[in-house]
Amino acid sequence: MTRVITFGEIMLRLSPPGHQRFVQASAFEVCYGGGEANVAVSLANYGLDAAFVTKVPDHEIGQSAINQLRRFGVDTRFIARGGNRLGIYFLETGAAQRPSKVIYDRQHSAIAEADPKDFNWQEIFAGAKWFHFTGITPALSSKAATATFNACRTAKEMGLTVSVDLNYRQKLWSPEEANKTMSKLMPYVDVCIGNEEDAEKVFGIKAGNTDITRGKINHKAYEEVAQQLMNRFNFKFVASTLRESRSASDNGWSAMLYDGQTAYYSRQYDIHLVDRVGGGDSFASGLIYGLLTGMAPQTALEFATAASALKQTVPGDFNLVSGKEVETLMQGDGSGRVQR
Amino acid sequence: MTRVITFGEIMLRLSPPGHQRFVQASAFEVCYGGGEANVAVSLANYGLDAAFVTKVPDHEIGQSAINQLRRFGVDTRFIARGGNRLGIYFLETGAAQRPSKVIYDRQHSAIAEADPKDFNWQEIFAGAKWFHFTGITPALSSKAATATFNACRTAKEMGLTVSVDLNYRQKLWSPEEANKTMSKLMPYVDVCIGNEEDAEKVFGIKAGNTDITRGKINHKAYEEVAQQLMNRFNFKFVASTLRESRSASDNGWSAMLYDGQTAYYSRQYDIHLVDRVGGGDSFASGLIYGLLTGMAPQTALEFATAASALKQTVPGDFNLVSGKEVETLMQGDGSGRVQR
Amino acid sequence: MTRVITFGEIMLRLSPPGHQRFVQASAFEVCYGGGEANVAVSLANYGLDAAFVTKVPDHEIGQSAINQLRRFGVDTRFIARGGNRLGIYFLETGAAQRPSKVIYDRQHSAIAEADPKDFNWQEIFAGAKWFHFTGITPALSSKAATATFNACRTAKEMGLTVSVDLNYRQKLWSPEEANKTMSKLMPYVDVCIGNEEDAEKVFGIKAGNTDITRGKINHKAYEEVAQQLMNRFNFKFVASTLRESRSASDNGWSAMLYDGQTAYYSRQYDIHLVDRVGGGDSFASGLIYGLLTGMAPQTALEFATAASALKQTVPGDFNLVSGKEVETLMQGDGSGRVQR
Amino acid sequence: MTRVITFGEIMLRLSPPGHQRFVQASAFEVCYGGGEANVAVSLANYGLDAAFVTKVPDHEIGQSAINQLRRFGVDTRFIARGGNRLGIYFLETGAAQRPSKVIYDRQHSAIAEADPKDFNWQEIFAGAKWFHFTGITPALSSKAATATFNACRTAKEMGLTVSVDLNYRQKLWSPEEANKTMSKLMPYVDVCIGNEEDAEKVFGIKAGNTDITRGKINHKAYEEVAQQLMNRFNFKFVASTLRESRSASDNGWSAMLYDGQTAYYSRQYDIHLVDRVGGGDSFASGLIYGLLTGMAPQTALEFATAASALKQTVPGDFNLVSGKEVETLMQGDGSGRVQR
Amino acid sequence: MTRVITFGEIMLRLSPPGHQRFVQASAFEVCYGGGEANVAVSLANYGLDAAFVTKVPDHEIGQSAINQLRRFGVDTRFIARGGNRLGIYFLETGAAQRPSKVIYDRQHSAIAEADPKDFNWQEIFAGAKWFHFTGITPALSSKAATATFNACRTAKEMGLTVSVDLNYRQKLWSPEEANKTMSKLMPYVDVCIGNEEDAEKVFGIKAGNTDITRGKINHKAYEEVAQQLMNRFNFKFVASTLRESRSASDNGWSAMLYDGQTAYYSRQYDIHLVDRVGGGDSFASGLIYGLLTGMAPQTALEFATAASALKQTVPGDFNLVSGKEVETLMQGDGSGRVQR
Amino acid sequence: MTRVITFGEIMLRLSPPGHQRFVQASAFEVCYGGGEANVAVSLANYGLDAAFVTKVPDHEIGQSAINQLRRFGVDTRFIARGGNRLGIYFLETGAAQRPSKVIYDRQHSAIAEADPKDFNWQEIFAGAKWFHFTGITPALSSKAATATFNACRTAKEMGLTVSVDLNYRQKLWSPEEANKTMSKLMPYVDVCIGNEEDAEKVFGIKAGNTDITRGKINHKAYEEVAQQLMNRFNFKFVASTLRESRSASDNGWSAMLYDGQTAYYSRQYDIHLVDRVGGGDSFASGLIYGLLTGMAPQTALEFATAASALKQTVPGDFNLVSGKEVETLMQGDGSGRVQR
Repeated sequence: MTRVITFGEIMLRLSPPGHQRFVQASAFEVCYGGGEANVAVSLANYGLDAAFVTKVPDHEIGQSAINQLRRFGVDTRFIARGGNRLGIYFLETGAAQRPSKVIYDRQHSAIAEADPKDFNWQEIFAGAKWFHFTGITPALSSKAATATFNACRTAKEMGLTVSVDLNYRQKLWSPEEANKTMSKLMPYVDVCIGNEEDAEKVFGIKAGNTDITRGKINHKAYEEVAQQLMNRFNFKFVASTLRESRSASDNGWSAMLYDGQTAYYSRQYDIHLVDRVGGGDSFASGLIYGLLTGMAPQTALEFATAASALKQTVPGDFNLVSGKEVETLMQGDGSGRVQR
Repeated sequence: MTRVITFGEIMLRLSPPGHQRFVQASAFEVCYGGGEANVAVSLANYGLDAAFVTKVPDHEIGQSAINQLRRFGVDTRFIARGGNRLGIYFLETGAAQRPSKVIYDRQHSAIAEADPKDFNWQEIFAGAKWFHFTGITPALSSKAATATFNACRTAKEMGLTVSVDLNYRQKLWSPEEANKTMSKLMPYVDVCIGNEEDAEKVFGIKAGNTDITRGKINHKAYEEVAQQLMNRFNFKFVASTLRESRSASDNGWSAMLYDGQTAYYSRQYDIHLVDRVGGGDSFASGLIYGLLTGMAPQTALEFATAASALKQTVPGDFNLVSGKEVETLMQGDGSGRVQR
Repeated sequence: MTRVITFGEIMLRLSPPGHQRFVQASAFEVCYGGGEANVAVSLANYGLDAAFVTKVPDHEIGQSAINQLRRFGVDTRFIARGGNRLGIYFLETGAAQRPSKVIYDRQHSAIAEADPKDFNWQEIFAGAKWFHFTGITPALSSKAATATFNACRTAKEMGLTVSVDLNYRQKLWSPEEANKTMSKLMPYVDVCIGNEEDAEKVFGIKAGNTDITRGKINHKAYEEVAQQLMNRFNFKFVASTLRESRSASDNGWSAMLYDGQTAYYSRQYDIHLVDRVGGGDSFASGLIYGLLTGMAPQTALEFATAASALKQTVPGDFNLVSGKEVETLMQGDGSGRVQR
Repeated sequence: MTRVITFGEIMLRLSPPGHQRFVQASAFEVCYGGGEANVAVSLANYGLDAAFVTKVPDHEIGQSAINQLRRFGVDTRFIARGGNRLGIYFLETGAAQRPSKVIYDRQHSAIAEADPKDFNWQEIFAGAKWFHFTGITPALSSKAATATFNACRTAKEMGLTVSVDLNYRQKLWSPEEANKTMSKLMPYVDVCIGNEEDAEKVFGIKAGNTDITRGKINHKAYEEVAQQLMNRFNFKFVASTLRESRSASDNGWSAMLYDGQTAYYSRQYDIHLVDRVGGGDSFASGLIYGLLTGMAPQTALEFATAASALKQTVPGDFNLVSGKEVETLMQGDGSGRVQR
Repeated sequence: MTRVITFGEIMLRLSPPGHQRFVQASAFEVCYGGGEANVAVSLANYGLDAAFVTKVPDHEIGQSAINQLRRFGVDTRFIARGGNRLGIYFLETGAAQRPSKVIYDRQHSAIAEADPKDFNWQEIFAGAKWFHFTGITPALSSKAATATFNACRTAKEMGLTVSVDLNYRQKLWSPEEANKTMSKLMPYVDVCIGNEEDAEKVFGIKAGNTDITRGKINHKAYEEVAQQLMNRFNFKFVASTLRESRSASDNGWSAMLYDGQTAYYSRQYDIHLVDRVGGGDSFASGLIYGLLTGMAPQTALEFATAASALKQTVPGDFNLVSGKEVETLMQGDGSGRVQR
Repeated sequence: MTRVITFGEIMLRLSPPGHQRFVQASAFEVCYGGGEANVAVSLANYGLDAAFVTKVPDHEIGQSAINQLRRFGVDTRFIARGGNRLGIYFLETGAAQRPSKVIYDRQHSAIAEADPKDFNWQEIFAGAKWFHFTGITPALSSKAATATFNACRTAKEMGLTVSVDLNYRQKLWSPEEANKTMSKLMPYVDVCIGNEEDAEKVFGIKAGNTDITRGKINHKAYEEVAQQLMNRFNFKFVASTLRESRSASDNGWSAMLYDGQTAYYSRQYDIHLVDRVGGGDSFASGLIYGLLTGMAPQTALEFATAASALKQTVPGDFNLVSGKEVETLMQGDGSGRVQR
């Protein structure tokens, strides 16, 4: 089995049931998730040997996060234990004109305060082919940025392919800080996923005047941004999801993959959202899977897009769909007829 | 803080979870609501000093109704205690072609049987600027009609602005009874909210031949009705929501405000319904808030319409959205993108 | 009250709540259902005297199935007790591009292993006007096929009208087995319900080149199939639902009824699905009700189609809507306005 | 099957889950129950042909009550439909030193306002052997008292055995009213169930100075009361449960049966309460079953006591235990070992 | 109404349902609580004018904490808004030999990081008679200790009675730190509540050799400790609850009150625990209520003990019982008979 | 890490919530369990490398069983996939005098129909120290008996210690069949766990006249049985739990371990049951852990007994307690004081 390593934060997620607002909740639904953890679960689900690396407290809430990863087949042997707390995020699910809302309570988490020495990358990467992280991990703290840098450098030295999902988070750092840190990491990266907003906020790269809140999608602008990223960091691939946010209930969903020469565009899906969180992560894992298993660019892109369309019908952060289910949708059966 | 008083009935609401039918339920979700209570909660939510006046039994179910009002910041000091029962309504939530269903069990409630002397309006209105009630309150009983009359007269004497939502309820009274009672109250009213059906049932005022069950909206007819109401009762404003009932799941939603000269129309929202109950009340509270805080008519109308569009994505009777959330939608961001 | 008998399997249905996937479930919602049981419940609901015949184990799970039938007014006196197990099916509810999934665990059920002598059809059919079964019953086992044959022959001898819903299930038998068994039963049948796929799989009858997974509907082809069925088995009526599977969340829904001369088509409904299981059964029961109570073909068809559109907004297998509710929708009120 | 008729009120019961207080509830668990309905369900469960007679509104909440009775095998054909509302009771489940609490909202119910002519007792009692009611039914209203009187007289004329459970309810009537009405009904009664408090409140009969809140049980006093009841009304049997209320969680439970000569005492059970509501009704149904099926007095008493001990471990009003389960406990196996 | 002020932390409490372990939970039940908040709720419940002072973040989770306080009648006007997070505690409910478990995640909370200037004690204490805090508040941070000191000093200056519940928490500070800080606060305190462990850990005061984990209670030792506390800080009253921890399901519960001359002992309750969290707080609020309303020492102690016995049958941190319910138990009715 | 292998059936367990009866359930709580799976989970929990071997269907219900094992750290690599169904058991939780009830629906399961060649024992046992099975596995089918025999023989050849829990199940086989099959397996067994009933049913060994349903425990008789087992099969240890079934809510719980010379008895626990299923399995895993890690017999026995006392406070089949928690109880702290 091909081995993939991801590194980042896993959080406890707490959501009021259904469409309740936070102030109405007398219970929270519990799951665990985070960008890189979500990618690892999805890859394990496709049959790869996926390991997630992080640090969680040595108490039952930390253990519960590990247990959910194990449940879905992720290798958790390299998760460090210690620190004071597990990061938390509260999620309120919107509908129609009311957006979903996230309240983060992730400061001082075990992973943000982890010592870079908690992670022996030589050992962790032994036998692995691919390393994935997102822009959230180095944003957590300077220690976490150091650990990410160590990981990237070691991965490169050991011959792994490295992918990043830029994922700019304004609550974690400023564009200046992001630029400074991410620019040091990019030389090790082969595959870069990021939308226009990420490119602008992290690297000051912008194009056209697409206004994403308007829900319009401008292919030309996306390609221009991808080319600029390519020019600057010499990536092998640049990819971006293209979400048309029509409302909190319904979205258009497609994606682009650029290899420096051709900009591939996927089919677009009209999705009726069950849980949009983790949509981007499921795209990343679909793309990693496609590229790792030797699919052609257009095929890998269609796989990633179909995978992430399906994710958004599954509650929770994790994309619990099989490769076979993704392929059925890729091949055009989105009719929703009952599978008996 | 500007003080607003509302007066009416608050009921225990019992609903089967999700889309279950009554005959399937092994549990009922519990909330409390009623036209004027809903308005008070929404105004408290916007930061006003809102008091709700009613009578509830001196037992734990009555107390629970009070507690829910307090929870959301409503002043409950003038709620009388006593009587035999709290009114109840059972709500079954429809979907697509199956309509939602309400079964009322509100007869003999504490408020319907309350003595008009239970309410000292001079004291209640001290320091207040606005009084709101709906056509449901005087329909409850002749005692309740007397109490409403006392409230209106005192409010006028003390210089409050008075608003009414006509809200004709055929289970409570006949058009004849409604006409007789409501006609006595209208001279005290400044702002009248009511759709065509209300105008026709309560005052025999009709126009055009709009058939609301067909979901078509005829601006001309609405304006004609508004003008007739204006002519007869000399209101400062007449307003109406314009619901296009496409199905139990999806509606078009907009509104009109008429000041005797101009008929203002709001933007229309396509809403995917979570809970349509209280939609009209959230429009009323939005309008009261807009007019009380000095918004221009078009702005107040847009505020009220956006507020009530959002309400219909929130479970329960109460409109638990903030003024800031309403403004974001008013200003055009209905994209539903996650707020992080 | 007109008496109708249905015969088949009732299963325990286990579904993860909401849109959870099987692997996420920590609880299963419980209901009971099966083609012929669903028809009986719906007919009882319309006020007919409906009896369901089957065999269930003599333990509490078997008793629970009976209790749910009794709860909704079905006569269960002729249900045999014994055998080892109640059939089970697991249902995962899809959304958007993710289809719903059914896992059957129905082998070795009490009804599949029932002795044909467990059912005294002379006694069962006493006083009855109509007998209904589906192609699932004879597919369960050769004993069940024998019992079905006995039922059909006796029904015919005793003057009952007989209807069948072909309902081909590939997990239960091959087209060859189906053809052989069903061809022996058809001579006793008056009303045959089945879509193109059923006709092709069970009787090798096909027409045109409609590809149902593409969601296109070809009237000509349906009529051709109906005529061939008519030619071969001399049915009085052939009917078919016409589902356009746009996604797991939204479907187009209409139906056709053919009397050998005219092909009647119903109005089409755009349905936002709550629970599509039992949609076909609710069409069958609507049609039986319509024909039994003397409606004209177009009216009976509209009744059946409206009934089954409503069913798909009700959770569970059973169609818990009244005749009056069906009529309201038939007469064009699909506006979803709250019924107070 | 032996046929038994019971007559009274069935209510919607609403309870906060677990040990929540009313003011904490965001949902209510739903069941339906009432003294005579509970007896009918239990008798149907033992295999008798039990019919329950009442009146419920012609809406879905009324229908739900009927459906729960049908679910557990009760004949509901003689239930009248109409009136305005179904009685409701709210139940909060106590623990340890905190007592359970009941809030009644039963005034103006369909059965309280039913016309005595709604019930054709000749037809209802056809083929029946036993009629049972409680002191609650005549207490509901003077109409209900008349209907009860008609029932008793007709039952006697038609040769049925008549039993009553005195069940004095201070919220419904005063001792004076109770005495007056009940004294007219007692001449028709054969078997009278009632504890000391009932005897004192309804008939002014008292003995000794047992203080029940002290949880002490005084056999002599009970026998004295039974003898006085016997003297006055010439009953065949007088029975009483003997509850030692140690706390809201744990009770001692036994019973006495007096035939005018011998006072039989049952074994005492230490019960850890799950739901004590309906404990007395399950004793009544156990006793009726025992006497109807010809058990000796001591055996019938042990059956009734064991049955009602088991009831108090079952949530809801209904005693959903089989005759076989009761017999196992009667024969001494209260070990609670798993039945596999 | 007599006004009481309490000051401290309110936390979000998250508990797996029933007796689930943390690692099993797919949902957490949500409530809010903390020592001084619990006291305020209980006093509001008894009819006093109780205000709770703290600081919570200006987001919806902070608002939810406020809303729960308002719901139960607490004055929340002096709660400061701001800071980063609301403290959280996770609670797993034990049973029998398995203890309940608490995981704290309270560091960096808004109240721990609050500026002492956030609280204007002159304004807050206007019109108040009593100030209460626990040893947890000064343990949160040195800022919180300063704020507590300011509060105590101002309270004393303004003539309020001051009470403390020592509540030593080893996760928050060492005995040395506790001793240093608490010793500065004690001169302002009139009523001190604390058990032997608190006295030893906070002030190094010990007596006898009672081993509390053994569940034995030694009156002499408690009195000795109380006297030492009295000697050192000149309190008016020293009180302590006396819990016999027999298991996680069953406890003995009583208390002692010492006025420098007499050691009063309450009746002991055998409690079957529903939720023991907040037991001590409900004792404190009962004692405050008793002393504030002029009860004699023995009566106040019995009130406080009965109140806290009842609390432990109510889920959540808050003691939602009325004064009347406490009095019923005090007067000896712990029979648990249903209150109808 | 020490490696342990267990082999047997894992089933889907379906239980009505709380104390509901089967006929009341509208949902089932879902977990997965079975004797040997439970042992593996418990050992993984104590930090051993535990693998569970079975066969489950290649669908999502089978996958869910695997996922739950992975979640709690069990090695599932040797679980074969295929076959038709996962065994199911329905569990109703009793209370007081009402026993819990199990309905098995396990026939035709994948493991019962597995080919002995599905399991390569040489590979499975590589590196392992201990093999455990129960008498249920060979009882499933003759194929399963052959697989068990192969496992035992290979284990012995490869030098593993072998333990068995006799666990006689009358629904699966007769005493004669059990005797025949088990007698062939015992020569490979080192540690035999079984109570008197097992010994009598499986091997015809009996002693004294202890009547277990009477809840009396007779040490002499147990020792006699242990000695007879020892004589016949030359075990190293014979162990038995000693359950005093006082009711379905409360049990006495202790155990005995016999090494051929000394009969060791553990401390007895009074347990208030949350979930008694898996009590015996948690004793077995505790004993295996104790003996494998070199504890003295009395210590190992106390560990096993304390572990299994704790298990019965945890919902579900699995014993989710840590070694440290067991040790705390062993060392005498059963006070149930909150662990903060």
